[in-house]
Amino acid sequence: MDLPAASPLAVADDLAAMARDLFAALREADHDGVGITRETYAAGETRAMRRIEALAREAGLDCAWDAAANLRVTLPGTDPALPAAACGSHLDSVPQGGNFDGAAGVIAGLLALLHAARAPRRPRTLHLFVLRGEESAWYGRPYLGSSALLGMFDPAWLDLPNLRDPALTLGAAMAREGAEVPVIAARTRLLDPVSLSHFVELHIEQAPVLIARRVPVGLVSGIRGNQRHPTARALGEAAHSGAVPRWLRRDAVLGAADFAMRLDATWRTLLERGEDLVMTFGIFTTDPREHAMTRVPGEVRFTLEWRSESDATLDAFGELVRTEAAEIARERGVRIELGPGVRTPPASMDPRLLAHARALCTRAGMPHEVLASGAGHDAAIFANAGVPSAMVFVRNEHGSHNPREAMEFDDFLHGAAVLREILLTGDEAIP
Amino acid sequence: MDLPAASPLAVADDLAAMARDLFAALREADHDGVGITRETYAAGETRAMRRIEALAREAGLDCAWDAAANLRVTLPGTDPALPAAACGSHLDSVPQGGNFDGAAGVIAGLLALLHAARAPRRPRTLHLFVLRGEESAWYGRPYLGSSALLGMFDPAWLDLPNLRDPALTLGAAMAREGAEVPVIAARTRLLDPVSLSHFVELHIEQAPVLIARRVPVGLVSGIRGNQRHPTARALGEAAHSGAVPRWLRRDAVLGAADFAMRLDATWRTLLERGEDLVMTFGIFTTDPREHAMTRVPGEVRFTLEWRSESDATLDAFGELVRTEAAEIARERGVRIELGPGVRTPPASMDPRLLAHARALCTRAGMPHEVLASGAGHDAAIFANAGVPSAMVFVRNEHGSHNPREAMEFDDFLHGAAVLREILLTGDEAIP
Repeated sequence: MDLPAASPLAVADDLAAMARDLFAALREADHDGVGITRETYAAGETRAMRRIEALAREAGLDCAWDAAANLRVTLPGTDPALPAAACGSHLDSVPQGGNFDGAAGVIAGLLALLHAARAPRRPRTLHLFVLRGEESAWYGRPYLGSSALLGMFDPAWLDLPNLRDPALTLGAAMAREGAEVPVIAARTRLLDPVSLSHFVELHIEQAPVLIARRVPVGLVSGIRGNQRHPTARALGEAAHSGAVPRWLRRDAVLGAADFAMRLDATWRTLLERGEDLVMTFGIFTTDPREHAMTRVPGEVRFTLEWRSESDATLDAFGELVRTEAAEIARERGVRIELGPGVRTPPASMDPRLLAHARALCTRAGMPHEVLASGAGHDAAIFANAGVPSAMVFVRNEHGSHNPREAMEFDDFLHGAAVLREILLTGDEAIP
Repeated sequence: MDLPAASPLAVADDLAAMARDLFAALREADHDGVGITRETYAAGETRAMRRIEALAREAGLDCAWDAAANLRVTLPGTDPALPAAACGSHLDSVPQGGNFDGAAGVIAGLLALLHAARAPRRPRTLHLFVLRGEESAWYGRPYLGSSALLGMFDPAWLDLPNLRDPALTLGAAMAREGAEVPVIAARTRLLDPVSLSHFVELHIEQAPVLIARRVPVGLVSGIRGNQRHPTARALGEAAHSGAVPRWLRRDAVLGAADFAMRLDATWRTLLERGEDLVMTFGIFTTDPREHAMTRVPGEVRFTLEWRSESDATLDAFGELVRTEAAEIARERGVRIELGPGVRTPPASMDPRLLAHARALCTRAGMPHEVLASGAGHDAAIFANAGVPSAMVFVRNEHGSHNPREAMEFDDFLHGAAVLREILLTGDEAIP
């Protein structure tokens, strides 16, 4: 899809070329032979951030590092009293990840500020936040930089060991990369949420919905919360596989399979009613210490997670889960124990910003799709801190967190232009 | 349940006392602190066999050891030209097993010969075979002694390593316990099946059917054959658990669960039609190298076994298994690969002997139940060699192959008396 140069979503050729070179440079710097590895609060992440800083300074933008060692790139407005419009994303990656998860959002933000810098100065200041440590792959906790920025960083996290190098704590890694750890330990808020009019983040889609719909750009309605049961079990009774007849069995695999099928049917029904929901049994296993081909299994261990944009749907599905578990016990003599559950609340994207983004896409003839984000993002931290927030997804094949991420560069430019317009005009939607 | 001393199924008090002492002595000799451990072709098994030999010789019975180091106890008849009636079972156990699996059948047989020795000599010779190596727990193959006896021992088995002591081969263990390995290696038949009129074996039930039916004695209609698929897989596609919607998933757990539920429904239908069938997914697991709570599982590995007394039912269920696998692929995009299958044919117990046994139980007022044996037994080797065979089960709680086997001694005596009468009068049923 080519857009005419006069389109409100056009990107100048030299900026597009810069973005292309930047992706290539990041890939070259941090490709480990299999994929991109850029560790949270480590040298590669800092080096990538300094590369962004250098390009920004060269173009005359202001740059500042905060106490969490996040980088803030700024195009000052003519009215410093006005709340600033902000965008941002991260540059760390999972081990052997792809080149686009995080970096696409940072590069899109840089394009937006460079584009704005060529126009007459606006009243409203623009920020690009290049955030630290979004990936939980290194210390087990995501959104470290954005949480610190907004005073949501739990000081206990400073003691978290690096999952690949347990002698290194998160606090030590942060200090090494220039963070002021005592400030973070004091839970100081580094940014007042009311100093921002709105926040917008671009990210590659981590599912193949846009691919399947043949649409380059997604507008995010909300970031799903989840309910997780990491230690669920189905408890029946082990027995001889040849000798015990069906009516005397309490087969844990059949009990757990029945439970999964009942929840699958319930899920389908809720989707038909228009609810937002996904459900996953990610781990599902008989007990390796005692399972055998000739033994009716007495126990299945499994994880169960469900996610929704709506807290009410999370609750409603939870009720149905408990009802079906009781049915399995009654009908099959297999006890379903969900074990402890952990809830992460959904984060709403601002409906006014979403409507504004839909309208500007429609006006510009940009095919788009409204969808929920199943994964968490830094934008959820901004949204939950009270900043009206929006997210733009870019079509991407093969998901994220792997070297096979595949984003077409033209799709990136379309998404980056949508991000830019939300950044520059989103305040119109928010009185 | 007490039987009057005049009942055809009574057991003399001194023989009952001997049996009780013999169970106690075997337990004392081979209890390892947790359960009974009596290894195949090893010192404990030989010692237990010599204990039977000593009691038999003391009572004037003949004893002989064959080339497979099986013990044969004989009460000669007056007409050596007549085929002999035979009974038997084994004395080895699984590691940390119970005291009754195998031993109950040997002791019941000894009681039968001692009972017969007190009556006037019969025309027909009686044999008790104390068979070696029935348990597959030691060398991975069951029915070693009975297979050797009837010329069904594959000489390749001589090289099988002991599963707990791989430096020891089965051949070396057999030689150590007195077997003539060159004779076995030549696949020599040690017993002509036509020299036996019939064979009967008593065994504890390995399922709780008789417990549930409140009946002390079972009469076996047949020994189930089986079809096994030890390396089956469900292959979908891994995906992000939060981001990918239901319509784009190919969830291997839901695919495999759906498959299991469809087969469970088919199983129930076949049971309602009166077919004999059991079905087990003994191992059922997502891939530990890549499964995670937040990942839609791309693969499930499972085992699938089904058993039936009827070869036709084994085939028919196999057809339905393949049909359902194809449906899962069509409806869920999850490919079910059964992998290689292994078939063990069923063994029929002789219907004339079964009818005879039912009649003698009914006449003697002995509550009994006709059922299939889900596990294999030495009797299957005799049956498949062409010897009309029967099996008597004794009620037993908690299954077998564990120290919690629980057979009431009175139930044993009832079963032993039924075995005795089938041994002594079964020839009447066979022209």
